[in-house]
Amino acid sequence: MFPKYDVIVVGAGHAGCEAAAAAANMGSKVLLITMNMQTIAQMSCNPAMGGVAKGQIVREVDALGGQSGLVSDRTMIQFRMLNRSKGPAMWSPRCQSDRMLFANEWRAILESTPNVDFWQDTVREILIKDNRVQGVKTSLGLEIASSAVVLTNGTFLNGLIHIGEKNFGGGRTGEKAATGLTEQLSALGFEAGRMKTGTPPRVDGRSLDYSRMEEQPGDEQPGKFSYKDTAPLLKQRSCWITYTNDKVHEVLRTGFDKSPMFSGRIKGLGPRYCPSVEDKINRFADKDRHQIFVEPEGWNTVEVYVNGFSTSLPEDVQYKALKEIPGFENVRMFRPGYAIEYDFFPPTQLKLTLETQRVANLFFAGQINGTTGYEEAACQGLMAGMNAHQNVHEKDAVILKRSEAYIGVLIDDLVNKGTEEPYRMFTSRAEYRTLLRQDNADIRLTPKGHALGLADAERLTNVAKKVAQTDELIQELMQAKVQPEEVNDRLEDWTTAPIREKTSLYQLLKRPQLSMEQIKVLQPRFSDWLGTLKPEAIEQAEIHVKYDSYIEKERLMVEKMGRMEDLMIIQNFNYDGVAALSFEGREKLKRARPQTIGQASRISGVSPSDISVLMIYLGR
Amino acid sequence: MFPKYDVIVVGAGHAGCEAAAAAANMGSKVLLITMNMQTIAQMSCNPAMGGVAKGQIVREVDALGGQSGLVSDRTMIQFRMLNRSKGPAMWSPRCQSDRMLFANEWRAILESTPNVDFWQDTVREILIKDNRVQGVKTSLGLEIASSAVVLTNGTFLNGLIHIGEKNFGGGRTGEKAATGLTEQLSALGFEAGRMKTGTPPRVDGRSLDYSRMEEQPGDEQPGKFSYKDTAPLLKQRSCWITYTNDKVHEVLRTGFDKSPMFSGRIKGLGPRYCPSVEDKINRFADKDRHQIFVEPEGWNTVEVYVNGFSTSLPEDVQYKALKEIPGFENVRMFRPGYAIEYDFFPPTQLKLTLETQRVANLFFAGQINGTTGYEEAACQGLMAGMNAHQNVHEKDAVILKRSEAYIGVLIDDLVNKGTEEPYRMFTSRAEYRTLLRQDNADIRLTPKGHALGLADAERLTNVAKKVAQTDELIQELMQAKVQPEEVNDRLEDWTTAPIREKTSLYQLLKRPQLSMEQIKVLQPRFSDWLGTLKPEAIEQAEIHVKYDSYIEKERLMVEKMGRMEDLMIIQNFNYDGVAALSFEGREKLKRARPQTIGQASRISGVSPSDISVLMIYLGR
Ligand SMILES: Cc1cc2nc3c(=O)[nH]c(=O)nc-3n(C[C@H](O)[C@H](O)[C@H](O)COP(=O)(O)OP(=O)(O)OC[C@H]3O[C@@H](n4cnc5c(N)ncnc54)[C@H](O)[C@@H]3O)c2cc1C
Ligand SMILES: Cc1cc2nc3c(=O)[nH]c(=O)nc-3n(C[C@H](O)[C@H](O)[C@H](O)COP(=O)(O)OP(=O)(O)OC[C@H]3O[C@@H](n4cnc5c(N)ncnc54)[C@H](O)[C@@H]3O)c2cc1C
Repeated sequence: MFPKYDVIVVGAGHAGCEAAAAAANMGSKVLLITMNMQTIAQMSCNPAMGGVAKGQIVREVDALGGQSGLVSDRTMIQFRMLNRSKGPAMWSPRCQSDRMLFANEWRAILESTPNVDFWQDTVREILIKDNRVQGVKTSLGLEIASSAVVLTNGTFLNGLIHIGEKNFGGGRTGEKAATGLTEQLSALGFEAGRMKTGTPPRVDGRSLDYSRMEEQPGDEQPGKFSYKDTAPLLKQRSCWITYTNDKVHEVLRTGFDKSPMFSGRIKGLGPRYCPSVEDKINRFADKDRHQIFVEPEGWNTVEVYVNGFSTSLPEDVQYKALKEIPGFENVRMFRPGYAIEYDFFPPTQLKLTLETQRVANLFFAGQINGTTGYEEAACQGLMAGMNAHQNVHEKDAVILKRSEAYIGVLIDDLVNKGTEEPYRMFTSRAEYRTLLRQDNADIRLTPKGHALGLADAERLTNVAKKVAQTDELIQELMQAKVQPEEVNDRLEDWTTAPIREKTSLYQLLKRPQLSMEQIKVLQPRFSDWLGTLKPEAIEQAEIHVKYDSYIEKERLMVEKMGRMEDLMIIQNFNYDGVAALSFEGREKLKRARPQTIGQASRISGVSPSDISVLMIYLGR
Repeated sequence: MFPKYDVIVVGAGHAGCEAAAAAANMGSKVLLITMNMQTIAQMSCNPAMGGVAKGQIVREVDALGGQSGLVSDRTMIQFRMLNRSKGPAMWSPRCQSDRMLFANEWRAILESTPNVDFWQDTVREILIKDNRVQGVKTSLGLEIASSAVVLTNGTFLNGLIHIGEKNFGGGRTGEKAATGLTEQLSALGFEAGRMKTGTPPRVDGRSLDYSRMEEQPGDEQPGKFSYKDTAPLLKQRSCWITYTNDKVHEVLRTGFDKSPMFSGRIKGLGPRYCPSVEDKINRFADKDRHQIFVEPEGWNTVEVYVNGFSTSLPEDVQYKALKEIPGFENVRMFRPGYAIEYDFFPPTQLKLTLETQRVANLFFAGQINGTTGYEEAACQGLMAGMNAHQNVHEKDAVILKRSEAYIGVLIDDLVNKGTEEPYRMFTSRAEYRTLLRQDNADIRLTPKGHALGLADAERLTNVAKKVAQTDELIQELMQAKVQPEEVNDRLEDWTTAPIREKTSLYQLLKRPQLSMEQIKVLQPRFSDWLGTLKPEAIEQAEIHVKYDSYIEKERLMVEKMGRMEDLMIIQNFNYDGVAALSFEGREKLKRARPQTIGQASRISGVSPSDISVLMIYLGR
């Protein structure tokens, strides 16, 4: 019935969709198998993409030639650049999405990708011979052959949904769980664990009183995720902000004895940084209110997402508590919040390519690796899809460094440190976040994506143009000089020190009080010329002028560390032969088999002195 | 958590959506409970509405103020008026729908209906006291109070999906079955039965060779379903026709020993008139080919519906057989065809209002009553919703006569004759089909729908205008006379007999060879005036002029039968006291408790002599 495929992707969530698109666009014949073709790229939880650190990831996915940025741009209903008031390392794009359109757009993109075939079915088993993937077996009993398999099962593996004291099997509400795979992989020696996550109730927007909430409109000049020429938003929908209060907390507490989390019925660990509302009032007992974002689910629907109110308390407690929130007095619920427990595989069992160490050409990506979030899933899918293609075609592995991309940080963290709780990206996880900005993901990654055959020529041309214009502009700023008498009046107006001698615009722009807007005023002939440049190039130049020293400092650090980072350890290095290693360090190293000293240094349990010992053995 | 509702509708399929909209628009407070809010108004099978007899039903639903016609008009990708070459009683509108848009549009309509609330959950039990509905209990354990409940569970009650020798629980592929309700209702004394239906595989349109098929474009002047001013289609997508052949049949036969139908694993009876392809080649062994309609699933998707190839044979047999169909040589399947078995309740347990005889204010509508098809489901939902509203507000029952609407025929058939196999509408089921045309559903039903508070004023005005213009035009045709010398040349050109004396246009239009187009030529001053009339009025007048005698004959028949039809039988008439009744007739009458002699006459097992006996007892 089926030809042999290069790559089979199991699951069409955010990871699976990116994996299928990436491998196919690089030239692999791909089969995407998913339980229900009607639910391709469903957003299981909040209808939003991006946010702090996550927005950077979407930009990186886009820069490499992935699709999530394009899908987001085409289906968003609101855009905001978060943290604009902070330094550019913190700027983070975020959008509200139209949930239905988002899924439709992803499906349309996959359907128009010639190398992607589809099959609706549930994968029950991986076919393996001599520790190498041969294909999959489905619940219909079909055996489908492939050279590589990417598993992206999300929250579906033995998924168990909890609401109050009730629980039932399911991968998402209303959908079946997937069984069989965990059992097979465990039997093969894979370690599996259990995690949980939760989602808030959805309510009827017609029942809310928005006059009691704070409006949160989109940016006046909405940005976007893709570096391609997607159209910017012309109209937007607002979100709304309100708060819980003592009364709400009191009502919620009445449900604690029936909470599946507090009673111990849920065994999996949940995301500490995305806690349920009952968790919040429990852990932060001193806080008398928590913020609630009231977010529309699309352009036309009245369904509303109550962000910040994730809960698995009994549905009547959810309801009574909601009613105490200002604006929610007459709330009508559509669906209750719930928690879901599911199997994951500790990602320390993976290589940095997301291939499993145990079975060749078997890749894991997304929530199955213990992460949480669409963006985290999407970027893993992209990397797994790329590497599956590379493996099958006997090409080099694609591994991003921690200094190159948040994606590099994420995968390195997962593989080397593992994770006890659902892993979510933060800017603080990146040691080089001044380098890993949302504005330069294209400069960092598009040349690589293009060389690999994923990012198209248009992308590369766009980057080249942006870099050239940025350089030109910086040169221009250095050369263009102004005299004190030309500008000092203005500078005083702007409460910044006057200059004493001829000074370059470059020097002036470095001042925190001045931006490119002021430079234009100081040098009007400049203004016209700037109009001919790409706005991204202007932004890029401005960032470079202002943050040059920070950027340079991090770059030097990367270089210094890089020398150690890249020091290779041979694959079958005999750790037992190195007596000076600590016991724990030796065990961890034997288990993880890091490829470089850098990787070894991030394995928890491996001490700095273990690293020194290793470096001596490696001849440094 | 919930107020007490007037009406709870269980299930948001085609029946449930119409029921909720109807009751709400008439003024009831409605709660629509459905297992998954993401699947509201899913088309489970073919992406098409209407067709022979079914199209008439959609027009009737629309005329009464239902929504299915509006939804179809707004989301169709192709429109065809079937049977144009036959008499107007056979004209049947049919459209291809965009599956995703269809569901989205229904959801948007329901969301903008102020009286409809939503709740995502599974109903497990009906709350009943003293044989009267009190509300429902859900799988979350919630008890929600209401005055009436409409059950529209479709194929979900203990649904069991079959593909070859495999079977698994589910209400549709990828969705869970609903359990508990059948068991409860059976315990209460309801009789339940088992039926089955099937669906064909879906395939990848990119893998088909359309040059080997016949194109079937939409109508050049596409019509529509709604009598409201929905916009006509400006562009359309074509369907394609191809055929099975001996080779295909041979391959299919190789799967017969694994067929769940032939092996007896499926116990429920399937729709005889919508058979699976294996059924067709089995029952019509002499036919060497069957037609296959290749239908796109939407504007943009490459997914294609293989109409005519419904099957539950093993998926590899499906695939191999498909490949033998011209144009399908390189076919790629997306999802296999399958059969589904589910519980239904023989509809003889209902009143003509679709209320159950056993439990007051409990209504059944749709596939749960043993019907098949979206249109059949939708119209039952509409009637059940209307009657639930009427009951709750102590208003008169709404019952359509067999002479008033296909909907009347359908419900009367179900309640009085019951059904052994999935019931589907045909024009042959209606004894007055010359009256029940698609072009006059508004004239027949909108005044009623408006009086009940469902059809809005715009609809009534539209009908009044249409009727007035039709009458005016007929008068005009009668008065406008032409002389032989004015027209005989033309008539000869058109190969119709010349006239001998002054003749009215009315008389000329009666001739089969002449249509309004020719009348315009004969009397050009007419042409301009016709331009000011509604096209529907012109069509109506033409139909009346041409088919007057048939229409009149049926009308007289209705009147004659009507006298008997409407003869009431008191509710607790003592059949045991009428010795002359046949044994079987008495038992059937006691069980069915018909409200009129007409109804009694259609109960199978009640003989004409039983009817004569009854009429004597009733004093005729
Ligand atoms: C209730 C809930 C709450 C959440 N809350 C949050 C939150 O607060 N914050 C946050 O960042 N993230 C949250 N998430 C997580 C977010 O939805 C996921 O991180 C993201 O969707 C993971 O993407 P994925 O591609 O790994 O898996 P999913 O999006 O889960 O997709 C998995 C896909 O695989 C298919 N599939 C599974 N098993 C099989 C099989 N055996 N055969 C064939 N197909 C299969 C499924 O049908 C599905 O299409 C939540 C998820 C859920 C369910
Ligand atoms: C595989 C298949 C093949 C078919 N083939 C044909 C065909 O060839 N020709 C044809 O004319 N028709 C066919 N049909 C039938 C057509 O789909 C139905 O006639 C039509 O959809 C019935 O509408 P409905 O509203 O009665 O039920 P459905 O459309 O089935 O909707 C039922 C709704 O009720 C919900 N629900 C069920 N139980 C519960 C509960 N306990 N609590 C809450 N919600 C509940 C479900 O989630 C769903 O939303 C087929 C259907 C299927 C599944």
